[in-house]
Amino acid sequence: MQSSAERCNQTLAHYLAQQPEISHLRTAMSYSITNGGKRFRPALVYMTLKALGVSLEKGDDIAAAIECIHTYSLIHDDLPAMDDDELRRGNPTCHIKFDEATAILAGDALQTLAFEIIANSQNLSDSQKVRIIQVLSKASGPAGMVGGQAHDLDSEGKQLTQVELEAIHNRKTGALIAACTEMACIAADAPKAIHTTLKDFSLTLGLAFQVSDDIIDITSSTEVLGKQQGSDHELDKATYPKLLTLDGAQAYLSQLKEKALTLLNQAELNCSEQLISLTHFVADRDH
Amino acid sequence: MQSSAERCNQTLAHYLAQQPEISHLRTAMSYSITNGGKRFRPALVYMTLKALGVSLEKGDDIAAAIECIHTYSLIHDDLPAMDDDELRRGNPTCHIKFDEATAILAGDALQTLAFEIIANSQNLSDSQKVRIIQVLSKASGPAGMVGGQAHDLDSEGKQLTQVELEAIHNRKTGALIAACTEMACIAADAPKAIHTTLKDFSLTLGLAFQVSDDIIDITSSTEVLGKQQGSDHELDKATYPKLLTLDGAQAYLSQLKEKALTLLNQAELNCSEQLISLTHFVADRDH
Repeated sequence: MQSSAERCNQTLAHYLAQQPEISHLRTAMSYSITNGGKRFRPALVYMTLKALGVSLEKGDDIAAAIECIHTYSLIHDDLPAMDDDELRRGNPTCHIKFDEATAILAGDALQTLAFEIIANSQNLSDSQKVRIIQVLSKASGPAGMVGGQAHDLDSEGKQLTQVELEAIHNRKTGALIAACTEMACIAADAPKAIHTTLKDFSLTLGLAFQVSDDIIDITSSTEVLGKQQGSDHELDKATYPKLLTLDGAQAYLSQLKEKALTLLNQAELNCSEQLISLTHFVADRDH
Repeated sequence: MQSSAERCNQTLAHYLAQQPEISHLRTAMSYSITNGGKRFRPALVYMTLKALGVSLEKGDDIAAAIECIHTYSLIHDDLPAMDDDELRRGNPTCHIKFDEATAILAGDALQTLAFEIIANSQNLSDSQKVRIIQVLSKASGPAGMVGGQAHDLDSEGKQLTQVELEAIHNRKTGALIAACTEMACIAADAPKAIHTTLKDFSLTLGLAFQVSDDIIDITSSTEVLGKQQGSDHELDKATYPKLLTLDGAQAYLSQLKEKALTLLNQAELNCSEQLISLTHFVADRDH
């Protein structure tokens, strides 16, 4: 994961350096982009390419673009009108560090930059670019991430069933995680069957990521989390431990891990070691 | 302009109907998209295609996409942390009609939809789509619209020179207006020389649009404007009448109009009648 993160950070630094600095806009974009994320989504892109036997260069712009989308969503989610979070990974959130207007614009600009990076990529054909933008826009729009966030905000304080909670997470985080493997498959010109199996795998992995996030929110400390411990719980948000108990959520996480590993086993991949490790990382992490 | 608006409205209605309704997200997107805009940018796309002798179908998705970007920027600009406007074209702004979180997400989703529409277009080749997304993302990102908005917010209460004010407007509104003719030229496979002349034309037209906006803000009534009369003046924003006096601003608008008409005359167009009328409309409008 570390080498994936370093690769992705280099690409992001390259593209951010090309942006003009106006007011604090570029500084705010860089601040949030470099705010210590795990670069889980870029890792998934690179590890999928590796599993498909394709050179990592093909993934550089995809990894950078998806991290721009992910970061923009965090900046906007943290705003006072949304989750109203003051800490993100141990540092002040963008609107606390700068101001609300700058945070809104930095998020907007990072979304734009994601599509600009793909459209201007030197490593992808026009046909690949178009299909990647189709996937990225669908995964981040109303049918995906933004829709999931709207549903999530709307569900605060409501009693949700597991099916409803899963629908929220599949949109809010799952769609973008599934887009990582899908876009890597497009860049690798992978056969259709592999697209499908890896999509099932990454949706399962994304759900596991969310379940483990919910578990960590109540089992870890504020210091380790880098955000207020129990903050999701406090907001009266639906979480897996609330729905299934903590033991139940942990058992569910184990099931999802097994399912993800089985799917990896079914896919005919050149080398699935890294994706197997990533699955263990997601299910077994404590922060 | 009316037939351009109707064409564009049909395309937008088609794409919005495909979005899932989650919480009030699609309703909020539709509310702002259908809130009585003049559809100036779509008109510029269609009129450029007409001037280049190309069928209007080639412009449908471009016109819809640019209107999504324009509308998203208005929703976010109206937010309390930005311009804090409660009225837009005589109706409550998105965050007043719904709430701030919904307005932020509706803006985000409209930006995403713009790129999704181009990537999924049935009327454009992959190469055209890629070049259009390059133009649209550059024009709406930090080097364009979002950068202009950041600069504009930063300049409130400051004494600006005409050069500085022009730099703000060229980014904030000019870049997107210039993108209209540029994207139409791409869709029409127009010769390079025409791209350049029409870009100069539309930048001039965009600046004229802004100067006339500033003039109207102080000469028109709240009722005609559909927003608080004198609101830019109140915010202590730099405007052309403030910088040049009202007479000076009107004289400058006339110069810009003449320049735009001269550029149209220089470009070798099949039929420039509509673009000539549009130029008169921009310079002579009273609301």
